[in-house]
Order: sequence, then C-alpha cells, then structure tokens
Amino acid sequence: MTSSLRSLDHIKSPVTAELDRFAGFFKQAMRSNVKLVDTVARYIVKQKGKRIRPILVFLAAKTCGGVSESTYRGATLVEILHTATLVHDDVVDDAETRRGLASINAVWKNKIAVLMGDYLLSTGLMVALRHDDFFFLKATSDAVRRMAEGEMLQIQKSKDLDIDEETYLKIISNKTASLLSTCTEIGAASITDDAGIRSAMKEFGQNLGMAFQIRDDMLDLTSRSSILGKPVGGDIKEKKMTLPLIHALKAAPAKEAKAVVRLIKKGAEKKEIAEIVAFIERYDGLTYSANRAREFAEQARLCLVRFPESDAKQSLLDFVEFVVRRDK
Amino acid sequence: MTSSLRSLDHIKSPVTAELDRFAGFFKQAMRSNVKLVDTVARYIVKQKGKRIRPILVFLAAKTCGGVSESTYRGATLVEILHTATLVHDDVVDDAETRRGLASINAVWKNKIAVLMGDYLLSTGLMVALRHDDFFFLKATSDAVRRMAEGEMLQIQKSKDLDIDEETYLKIISNKTASLLSTCTEIGAASITDDAGIRSAMKEFGQNLGMAFQIRDDMLDLTSRSSILGKPVGGDIKEKKMTLPLIHALKAAPAKEAKAVVRLIKKGAEKKEIAEIVAFIERYDGLTYSANRAREFAEQARLCLVRFPESDAKQSLLDFVEFVVRRDK
Repeated sequence: MTSSLRSLDHIKSPVTAELDRFAGFFKQAMRSNVKLVDTVARYIVKQKGKRIRPILVFLAAKTCGGVSESTYRGATLVEILHTATLVHDDVVDDAETRRGLASINAVWKNKIAVLMGDYLLSTGLMVALRHDDFFFLKATSDAVRRMAEGEMLQIQKSKDLDIDEETYLKIISNKTASLLSTCTEIGAASITDDAGIRSAMKEFGQNLGMAFQIRDDMLDLTSRSSILGKPVGGDIKEKKMTLPLIHALKAAPAKEAKAVVRLIKKGAEKKEIAEIVAFIERYDGLTYSANRAREFAEQARLCLVRFPESDAKQSLLDFVEFVVRRDK
Repeated sequence: MTSSLRSLDHIKSPVTAELDRFAGFFKQAMRSNVKLVDTVARYIVKQKGKRIRPILVFLAAKTCGGVSESTYRGATLVEILHTATLVHDDVVDDAETRRGLASINAVWKNKIAVLMGDYLLSTGLMVALRHDDFFFLKATSDAVRRMAEGEMLQIQKSKDLDIDEETYLKIISNKTASLLSTCTEIGAASITDDAGIRSAMKEFGQNLGMAFQIRDDMLDLTSRSSILGKPVGGDIKEKKMTLPLIHALKAAPAKEAKAVVRLIKKGAEKKEIAEIVAFIERYDGLTYSANRAREFAEQARLCLVRFPESDAKQSLLDFVEFVVRRDK
C-alpha cells in the first residue's frame, strides 16, 4: 500500500464535532467538590493528550452506523480510565513530565498521584454505572486488569531478560492492545447489539494496538537518535526486551547474543546503547519488527472489510497506516 | 451500657464457618497467571488482616435472615477493594510494614505496589461483574471514589490546618465510614430487596464507621504512649487535624490555640507532641471525642432495633461496643 500518509488531524476530521462535545463531557465528569481533587483534575484536563482513544470510539461507532449518547459515555469512560493509568504510570516510572507539562507526581508528590488515579478509576466506573452501561464496564474492567497484568509481566521478565516473541506479544497485547480494542468494541456496542459486528470491531482494535506498540518499540530505538541530546534506547536502559532486540538476539550467533545480554544486564550507557542498536540492525531486528507490524496492520484492515464505505471507515484505515508509518 | 467487652473472636463466632469458606473464595479470586502478580497476591493473602469487612458483610446478611452465594461474592469484593486501597496507602504513606510484615512497596518498590493495587481494584470489580452483581458495583465504586476524595480533602486541609468539626466528620465519613457502610449494605442486599432494610443496614455501618474512626484518632493520641519507644501523636506529626485536637483548639483561649497551631505547623517533635497531647486533655478534647463516638454508637444501635434478635445481631451490637471501647 502506498497511499499518502494522513495526519492525525485529517484522520479525526469525520468526528470533529463529536470530539468537541466530548471535551465538555470529559471536563464535567472530572469535576469534584473537593478543591484539591478539582485542582488536580483541571490540571489533567489541561494536559490534553491526542485523544486517540475517544477518536477510536467515535470512528468505530460511525463506521457501524452513527453516534449515540452512549457513545459519548463510552468515550468519556475510556479516556478517564486511560488518564488514571497515566497518572499511576508516572508514579510507577517516576516521570517528571507528561505531555509537555510537569507530571502530577512531580507537582503534587506520589501520594496525591496515587489517590487521584484511584479517584479517576472509580469516577470512570461511576459514569458507566449511572447509566447501566454494564457492557462498557465489563470491557473496561477487563482492560484495566490486563493492563496491570501486562506491566507486571514485563517487570517480571525484565529481571532475567528471558523473553521470547510469544511472551512479548502477550505483554503488548495486555498493556496496549487491550484498551484500544476496548475502545473500538465500545464504539460498536454503543450503536449495535450485533455480536459479529462488535467482535469484528474489537478485533480491529486489537490488531491496531499490536501494530501500534511494535512501532512504538521500534521508535524507541530509532526516532530520537536524530534529535541531539535526547537519549535513544530508553527501553534497553530499563532492561525492557522489545521485539527488535528479541529477534536480533535469536538471529545472532549465541556468543554474540550472550555478550549483548550481559551488557544490558549490567546497565548499558549511551555508547553501549548505540552498539546494541547497531547489533539489532545488523541482525535485522528493525526490518523484522516492521514486517510484524505490517502483518498486524493487514489483519486490522481485513476486520473492516464487512463494513460499508464511509468517511469514518476510511479514517480507521488511514489510522492503521498512520500507526505503522509514524515517525514519533 | 455496661456490658462486658467482647473480643473480636467472640464477635465473629456466629460466622466462623462462613469466614473459613470465604478464605477460599478470596484466595481463588486473587490468583493470576502472571507469576509476579501471583507471588505478590500470595504475600498479600499471607498478610491476613482482621477481616473486619467480611465479618461485617456476613453478620449483616445473617441479621437480615441468612447468607447466600452472593454474600460470599460481596465479602470477597469488599476485601479485595480494601486490600487494593491498603496497598496504595502504603505507597501514599511510604509505609515500611503492614500487618507485621514488610509492606508491598518496601519489598517490591512503589512501581509494583501501584500496579498491584490497580490489578486488585479491577479484579474486585470483575468478581462482581461476572455475576451481574450491579448493586454491589455501584455501592463499591462509590465507596472507592469517596475514600480517595476523603484522603484528598484531608491532605488539602492539612496544609493550612484550618479544619472544623464539620469538615473532619466529612473526611472520616468518606475515608472510613463509606466502606464500612458499603459492607453492611451489601450484606443486606445479598439477602433482601427490601429498600428499608438495606438502608437501615447501610446507616448502621455508616454510624459504626464514624465511631470507629473517632476512636482510632483518639487512640493515636493515647494508646501507644504506654508502650515505651513507640511514638504517640503520629497524626499531629503529619499535621492531620483530628477531633480531639479540633475541639481543644476551639475550647482554648485564642492565644493559646494559636501557639499550638504554630507548633504543629513548624513540625512538632516528641517533646512538643507530649505538650500538645496535654493541651488536648486540658481542654477536654478526648472526653468530647469519646462522647461523640458514643453518640454515633448509639445511632448505630438504633438502626438495629427493627431486626429480630439473633446471635448475628448480638454480634453487631457487641461490635459497636468493641469499636468505642477498644484499646488498640
């Protein structure tokens, strides 16, 4: 496929009006009578992300025929849950910044970040419960659980650096694809009871999520090398085994692979990280990963075949292309 | 009331068999295929607490007529959610120990404690969702939200030390009474659809929780003073304003009160904490708080009048007495 790469702005154009209205829903849902909660919530609203998850909910719903009130609640629910996990992630990673602003834990300490994350998790659930959106709840609770399990599995495996492609795929399926597939599933479920349509949309999101994370892990090795002063290979430094490395270790002679593992285990610094990236390229880790990402992207496209043509469907297809070709 | 004080073992005797069976449910619900999750979960099961919340669920259900399968799920749900908040609390408070064992964050670092808490929160919800216990879900999501809001309000207020009795009551209502009232409400709801009975049980738990927390805050000032080497007045040190102090500050002459506030603000050490405790006693802070706790206890007892006599009901009454008279 050689279509020109659409920007995210272009991709979301079929649901611009919906996203505007969503912004009000989101803000409203985050409100609290406790001043400190409200202050932190407003700060979070200001840290406005790309809204990828609400965009997916709305595009999936429109591809299935339209957008309903329940689509808005679904979008609000997933964005609140995603925000909750981000706030907790920043504690987990001791992150100083998030979306260009200081992170919650950097401004208000871990204490408040943990509580705020819990507050958001329960607030998201309450949005769904108030309207008896039980299907949404099942889908999202399962996603939150899988995200936590995925992160834990990654931590567990990073200790001994023994991780094969299958385990890697399980980790990214849990920590990334689970929420994206929940988004597209919820979008469909907000419009139709047809189990086949819901499951096609869920599978679309699942494959999209896999492609997204593989590309993300590739970019960790390549993207920022060109921008002076920014570290490349953060994952290597944190001993996270991603697909390009896993493939290269398998493809390389055992002795060379062992030396690389030793280097990572002892804690690789800038110069050594560059060596490891070169090693990965030498054994086709990036090419192999790009191919795997393309396979998932192709699977995602196939899930959409059954849907009639529409601007929204075209945007989902453009999204797939965007995911595997983006540079950052 | 001058009945003899029953021990917790005596109080829980009407539901011993149920608690044994519950232990299996709880262990089962915590299981995970991810080894690290499972290891941490087993550790948590080993940190076995007093199981006050499940005890309340079962006693409330029995007082309403019996125990059903759904009572077990309710007990499992509240204990998992309670455990999740404890795991997160330890991060929040940087606690080193929990229930006599090292805390999760002390053994596995904050990262894992935060993720494990999220895992537990969603696991608890899944237990309820799998069986369509939507009422349980609404009650518990609301409780989790209120607990986070209560803690946030306390942090917010601890900064400027301006907190009156009304705010204090709101804080403890959110952070403590909310979950205890959810326990008794869920216990009732697992047995009957009668809205009057459910709400009487909920109100019982609410009042019990208020008495419990007031007593807890009194004990922070008095209990451990007798045990050499253990610090008294941890709340004062952390600038948490509790009822005994709030009352004394109001009862004392303005000048004396101001001096005490200054002392707390600058960070009171051992000797100064003893002075502040003496100040609180001088202005009847402890007596006043004991009376308030007794008032809530009396309200709790009144909520039970409508229920027929039974061993379970007697245990709930004994629990009320235990709560306001316990020494630790």
